[in-house]
Amino acid sequence: MASMAAVLSKTSFLSSQPLTKSPNSDFPLTASVSFPSKSPRRRGAVVRAGLIAPDGGKLVELVVAEPRRREKKHEAAELPRVELTPIDMQWMHVLSEGWASPLGGFMRESEFLQTLHFNSLRLDDGSVVNMSVPIVLAIDDDQKARIGESKRVALVDSDGNPVAILSDIEIYKHPKEERIARTWGTTAPGLPYVEEAITNAGNWLIGGDLEVLEPVKYNDGLDRFRLSPAELRKELEKRGADAVFAFQLRNPVHNGHALLMTDTRRRLLEMGYKNPILLLHPLGGYTKADDVPLSWRMKQHEKVLEDGVLDPETTVVSIFPSPMHYAGPTEVQWHAKARINAGANFYIVGRDPAGMGHPVEKRDLYDADHGKKVLSMAPGLERLNILPFKVAAYDKTQGKMAFFDPSRPQDFLFISGTKMRALAKNKENPPDGFMCPGGWQVLVDYYDSLTPAGNGRLPEVVPA
Amino acid sequence: MASMAAVLSKTSFLSSQPLTKSPNSDFPLTASVSFPSKSPRRRGAVVRAGLIAPDGGKLVELVVAEPRRREKKHEAAELPRVELTPIDMQWMHVLSEGWASPLGGFMRESEFLQTLHFNSLRLDDGSVVNMSVPIVLAIDDDQKARIGESKRVALVDSDGNPVAILSDIEIYKHPKEERIARTWGTTAPGLPYVEEAITNAGNWLIGGDLEVLEPVKYNDGLDRFRLSPAELRKELEKRGADAVFAFQLRNPVHNGHALLMTDTRRRLLEMGYKNPILLLHPLGGYTKADDVPLSWRMKQHEKVLEDGVLDPETTVVSIFPSPMHYAGPTEVQWHAKARINAGANFYIVGRDPAGMGHPVEKRDLYDADHGKKVLSMAPGLERLNILPFKVAAYDKTQGKMAFFDPSRPQDFLFISGTKMRALAKNKENPPDGFMCPGGWQVLVDYYDSLTPAGNGRLPEVVPA
Repeated sequence: MASMAAVLSKTSFLSSQPLTKSPNSDFPLTASVSFPSKSPRRRGAVVRAGLIAPDGGKLVELVVAEPRRREKKHEAAELPRVELTPIDMQWMHVLSEGWASPLGGFMRESEFLQTLHFNSLRLDDGSVVNMSVPIVLAIDDDQKARIGESKRVALVDSDGNPVAILSDIEIYKHPKEERIARTWGTTAPGLPYVEEAITNAGNWLIGGDLEVLEPVKYNDGLDRFRLSPAELRKELEKRGADAVFAFQLRNPVHNGHALLMTDTRRRLLEMGYKNPILLLHPLGGYTKADDVPLSWRMKQHEKVLEDGVLDPETTVVSIFPSPMHYAGPTEVQWHAKARINAGANFYIVGRDPAGMGHPVEKRDLYDADHGKKVLSMAPGLERLNILPFKVAAYDKTQGKMAFFDPSRPQDFLFISGTKMRALAKNKENPPDGFMCPGGWQVLVDYYDSLTPAGNGRLPEVVPA
Repeated sequence: MASMAAVLSKTSFLSSQPLTKSPNSDFPLTASVSFPSKSPRRRGAVVRAGLIAPDGGKLVELVVAEPRRREKKHEAAELPRVELTPIDMQWMHVLSEGWASPLGGFMRESEFLQTLHFNSLRLDDGSVVNMSVPIVLAIDDDQKARIGESKRVALVDSDGNPVAILSDIEIYKHPKEERIARTWGTTAPGLPYVEEAITNAGNWLIGGDLEVLEPVKYNDGLDRFRLSPAELRKELEKRGADAVFAFQLRNPVHNGHALLMTDTRRRLLEMGYKNPILLLHPLGGYTKADDVPLSWRMKQHEKVLEDGVLDPETTVVSIFPSPMHYAGPTEVQWHAKARINAGANFYIVGRDPAGMGHPVEKRDLYDADHGKKVLSMAPGLERLNILPFKVAAYDKTQGKMAFFDPSRPQDFLFISGTKMRALAKNKENPPDGFMCPGGWQVLVDYYDSLTPAGNGRLPEVVPA
């Protein structure tokens, strides 16, 4: 169901750095992050059984149990209403399944402030969990006035149907400029999530305890891939995983990615794990206009797997329902933290995770190394083993993707996401060995489907 | 020496909220921060002796001991040189005396990133200390080129005299926009510290282990007030303090402040402490142009104390050498953390600490309550008791400063710093009971001293 059929390719053309980090050995770190192999190696052959515990000790699921749904729907019908945007709905989905455990709803101000200033939340018992991205719900002055003194509201979808109840609510100011500055490290105009979800949002935030009336479904043919953390844990336990390594992606899979995943499994086996399972976990929520949409990416992933790169016995493919912030080092923590809740104890991090070009200046928004450095030092992620990997590029001498060798830079071709999209759009082929032909054809078909007179979607501008 | 003579006034015209917070009880907090009186009350009459330990367990002092100064000066003469600005010198002073313990020098990148993202540093033993403001040293391309492959540099003052050695150096990019956005929560032009110390600073930061060649002196007649954390601890121990409450200020003291301090002592005595000592701790480093300069503030403080408001037996007056960021909730953590290192276990926090007007928009830059909320939840400050106080204003019915009573707002007059400065500049008197006449006269004299044709200093623009 969740695993796509695939065969493990033994070809090895990408390498990675040492796989583990030593908790609490990060002060002071030098400019080049070092990840001394410590805890897992120490275990040797004795590998601890059972999945990593969710943040806060237990998974916080917020979907109302079947016997009470009818009653809750009646309650919701009587409450002041707050209409959710599609991105709000995605966050509600995220919260409802416990990806943000132990969060019990849209953030109140204390959680919002801790997220902005500390990228983490302190729990009642004094322990700390990571929480780097605000999960908040904005309302405008009119909505605030309509809520009045009510302590509960109904959240409704774009058709006006109640989908959740928010209780013990707290309404507080939405400091947009500060939220943007502290989350993205810039306030430059043109940040996709900001323009989509913040700039025109209301001047208030409403937090509270969330009860979602029904499991969230999209009815787009992909719901079978949307496993909740609890469902993933069940699947991973069924398979007897003693290590789970998560790979977050929002782009088509090329052979560099594929090699990395198989190489990671090899290394985990070397470390003494008996049954490491890969969680191949494409992001399914909001992405910017020039990213490849989820449906096409899933088609592409399917082709890549059919072409035989990954072992179905050791791979779980699922969709991570979160929207994308493109907030680099801040957001990569969220991507990692959410996967702990799904049972992953290893997280693969690449160059410039969740990064993008600066919206105004001609440079990357984030230093390409800051993501993995920040991730390695982030409060609440000490239990997670961070797996950094070095830059992959197309090695012209071998005709395949390989680990970049700085002693012979002239042999390597860097194929960026932008370059890849430009080739596909122009129906050109990438070098042999970059991506399997079936997967590439999906991309070509996708760009072909974008016609100016199409369904209102304009073709993206892609430099050739 | 460090305590100015003063007599305790029994008049009570300012009240404060409950004094203590419960560590680790901050999740979830509601919009109104509550500070349940817990740990100190629990102690009852049994009050623990001894001062609070410095962050990281011991005070990190970085001044070279006398026997080795000559040798170190010879070493410094041979090294590549980095010239310090006056603000750099102030930070060197801060570091040299251990205010930022356990920091051992200007930040390397791992410390810089942890400060920006987490406002805290994780130590080797896994414990966390607060560190909210980057203490960094910027260099430009030319300086970087001159340093070349050297692993050590000499830091020199504006006359070219070596004042310190920085060893095991690390040079990394100075991401100015990101530093500003994450520290201030805005990138709007006109932030005083940014314009003074960041905008024109170099594009690189240099971190390393600091050795300062001589204790830092300013020879401005105020050095006797510049007690280091170690000197303050010695003084506080000599007095047998069993509680130390710090009051950070960068403005003239009015009767609202004075009342608060005496009222705090009364409450600490009620809680069972036998000898609470006040650390009255004006900030002595860089301040913005329209703040009253340190020398005038110290004159004003002296007059206020001469007029008999505070008990010399229970008050230590000293200068905190840090420059001012005006970074609100981010900076107040630094102000509090540094005082732990000086032995304070109680910290008084007011409305909008370290705040200012938005440099572009017509509003305060920070929500007035965020400072105390953030402080109460800040990682590494769990050991510090936060003492919030409510808004003080001039009560026209009593003719004195009093705790604002929202049931009769018409009786109160709010006298902001801006308003106070405007009155003094125009040689008008504030209402009786706002400030002692001697202290007020110092302010009038200060503004009188600002003449257009003076020593190059232009008079500030003050709305009347």
